[in-house]
Amino acid sequence: MKDPHRVVIIGGGFAGLNCAQSLANDDRFEVTLIDRQNHHLFQPLLYQVATASLSAVEIARSLRAILDDASNVSVILDQVNQLAGADNIIITEHGEYPYDSLVLATGAHTSYFGKDEWAKHTYGLKTLEDSRRIRHQVLNALEQAERSTDLEERKRLMTVGIVGGGPTGVELAGAFSDLVRRALKSDYRRIDVSDFRIVLIQSGDRLLKPFAEDHSKYTLDRLRDLGVEVILGPRVDDVKKGCLHLNDGREIHAETLIWAAGVAASPLTECLECPRDRGGRIKVEPSLSVPGHPNVFAAGDLVNLTDPDGQVVPGLAPAAMQMGKHVAKVLKEDLRLKTTRYADRYLDLRPAYRYRDKGIMAIIGKNAAVAQAKMLKLKGFPAWLAWLFIHLAFLVGFRNKLAVLLSWAFSYLFDKPAARVFSIPESDRPEKPPSSEPSSSP
Amino acid sequence: MKDPHRVVIIGGGFAGLNCAQSLANDDRFEVTLIDRQNHHLFQPLLYQVATASLSAVEIARSLRAILDDASNVSVILDQVNQLAGADNIIITEHGEYPYDSLVLATGAHTSYFGKDEWAKHTYGLKTLEDSRRIRHQVLNALEQAERSTDLEERKRLMTVGIVGGGPTGVELAGAFSDLVRRALKSDYRRIDVSDFRIVLIQSGDRLLKPFAEDHSKYTLDRLRDLGVEVILGPRVDDVKKGCLHLNDGREIHAETLIWAAGVAASPLTECLECPRDRGGRIKVEPSLSVPGHPNVFAAGDLVNLTDPDGQVVPGLAPAAMQMGKHVAKVLKEDLRLKTTRYADRYLDLRPAYRYRDKGIMAIIGKNAAVAQAKMLKLKGFPAWLAWLFIHLAFLVGFRNKLAVLLSWAFSYLFDKPAARVFSIPESDRPEKPPSSEPSSSP
Repeated sequence: MKDPHRVVIIGGGFAGLNCAQSLANDDRFEVTLIDRQNHHLFQPLLYQVATASLSAVEIARSLRAILDDASNVSVILDQVNQLAGADNIIITEHGEYPYDSLVLATGAHTSYFGKDEWAKHTYGLKTLEDSRRIRHQVLNALEQAERSTDLEERKRLMTVGIVGGGPTGVELAGAFSDLVRRALKSDYRRIDVSDFRIVLIQSGDRLLKPFAEDHSKYTLDRLRDLGVEVILGPRVDDVKKGCLHLNDGREIHAETLIWAAGVAASPLTECLECPRDRGGRIKVEPSLSVPGHPNVFAAGDLVNLTDPDGQVVPGLAPAAMQMGKHVAKVLKEDLRLKTTRYADRYLDLRPAYRYRDKGIMAIIGKNAAVAQAKMLKLKGFPAWLAWLFIHLAFLVGFRNKLAVLLSWAFSYLFDKPAARVFSIPESDRPEKPPSSEPSSSP
Repeated sequence: MKDPHRVVIIGGGFAGLNCAQSLANDDRFEVTLIDRQNHHLFQPLLYQVATASLSAVEIARSLRAILDDASNVSVILDQVNQLAGADNIIITEHGEYPYDSLVLATGAHTSYFGKDEWAKHTYGLKTLEDSRRIRHQVLNALEQAERSTDLEERKRLMTVGIVGGGPTGVELAGAFSDLVRRALKSDYRRIDVSDFRIVLIQSGDRLLKPFAEDHSKYTLDRLRDLGVEVILGPRVDDVKKGCLHLNDGREIHAETLIWAAGVAASPLTECLECPRDRGGRIKVEPSLSVPGHPNVFAAGDLVNLTDPDGQVVPGLAPAAMQMGKHVAKVLKEDLRLKTTRYADRYLDLRPAYRYRDKGIMAIIGKNAAVAQAKMLKLKGFPAWLAWLFIHLAFLVGFRNKLAVLLSWAFSYLFDKPAARVFSIPESDRPEKPPSSEPSSSP
């Protein structure tokens, strides 16, 4: 038998994981999946970890666990710093991985439109660590407010500012409202958590731009019902510690500032000579290969593509999954064609990727969401139910589905999210603990 | 109405929480519970978080959530650094809390018998942060082993050394064996996880000293069946990075070293002038008040007491719960007596605390545990079942019980723990992310 075709996939998100799964147990391929985290993360629910509705483990699953039946797939926990395009080799922090084909699926990260100094005053929301930090920050600010006697300080501590009125910003704002108005309402003795301010800033004239206008209007009304202050129009022109400055002169003083206004492709794309857009996304060929590098593919959020049907492929999970599977299909087709009389024309015969639009949706709060697909427009309770079921369906692993369903059922019935816990590292270790007998525990 | 009696409780563990709950909604009392974490932690299951069987949130619950119906109890997240005994005032990092009665329930921490320099090479297991660090360390060492080509290094990476053969050491050793021999067995491609070495070191001549001898023997046999190397006899006389030195000359090279050999009372007890034992535990009066300080009480792991029946009160969760409730009872009795003709003798009339022995138990692995109470001795499957039900019963909150039950059922049926996830902080932030359009998410 011939040596298998070596595929290296960088990134275990929706695109990379779906590509690996499509190549699993096809022994013509030897697949190495490299990620710097040991888990696949279900990013669409990340905001629920940040707002203490779900625990981190419920939306993350070990990549090894997902792929343990795929005997031709190796998972490597490592950080890729460089692509040596010409040599067909990946150089990581701890090793080198030669490949025949390379799949880039490193996704996107929070972008500040060039104002990187804003990063240190705001929280992004792309990783588990990000979501844990936001949860810690908000719960801790409430604890500080409970201790504080300075009214001005209390006000600042009890304000969260969210920049960006896309789905992430809207979902965060709605979930914070839920947290303070339902979950925490009887928890504090000195502060009134219903004073908690949630300010959502969107520079355009409406929320959820990709949605229909009446959905934007519905979302705005529902958020205002939930007590969220929505500011439409002005843009943020400066960010200081605990303060957003808007270009209409207003200032928002808030202990917690969250940046949900922009993402850009992972900087790894800069290692390759190829056409890119302003956001660093690679302008790929219709087959998803990288121009000038026929054995390198890109999939997921780092792709800029208008498909043959004229659809701009969006930075959404369903698109990333489809692209991952498409790359696997192209790799298989390449191998097949190489055994036919079209062997020397296989590059021209590669199938083009077409985006199958599954629709878009965003959740606002209990019983309220918006959803639209080609034939269907939903809002309110039906959209909310659809949102729940679709997110459950796509969550990886039966175990996680059941755990999340349980958490949601509890929150719905009892208004009590479980994950209201944060852990303060013991910086204050005792200096000299006295000696002692052996420990015991029940 | 008279001003309520102000009770300050320091520590939200089993003792402090039970004391607060016993005083809840009794408006003769105004209770302030101070803890440096925002959660009550179910310590008996901490080892399962360390070994990736449970997630942190499943065994921790927000103190505010537990006490939200107790209108006379305030929870304060703060660090107590000092006790000004004479002035009846607590000075914390962020404030001052005057009291009429004070309850010390700050528990125990890992102790190294005076060799504090060993702390930096080993992990203790007392807090959520500790358990997360152990999980991260062990899973990350396996990832390094999978990448490594150096056989000697691999061997070291795939070894965990546990010092202390009490319940914590035994439970950790059994759970690590479960993790590598059942849960992870098909996860890696280059290393064989069945090579993973678990070394348990106990200086005495048997494991689980407080148990009957045949239970110790059974535990030893079962652990050896599970592939754990148990070393009985020698003691650790030096600890270096990645190496335990035993006093019979042996050296154990292990990437992960866990210290489960000793605890001592929290150092806060040193602020009070009162008799203490070698482990820093307060030698309390029979009523649990601190000698010389009739309005200060101690409860839980920082107490050294032989009760009127001659029983030494052990450092176990049931004892801590009983002591917390007993202190509340004494406080109520004090108030009652002060309204009678015995008012000036209330101190002499305080009821003594009596330890009600609920028995002891330890789990070894799937279907294997030991348990003994006054009338009953169990081992094997019945003990294992008893262990499961008792731990579920005492876990605080129906939500947590159900989540833990679900996790256990899954592990039992599918050998697949859910919590096999750790998160690597992004130290390697991209230097200059390109600017971009607004984000969107599904």
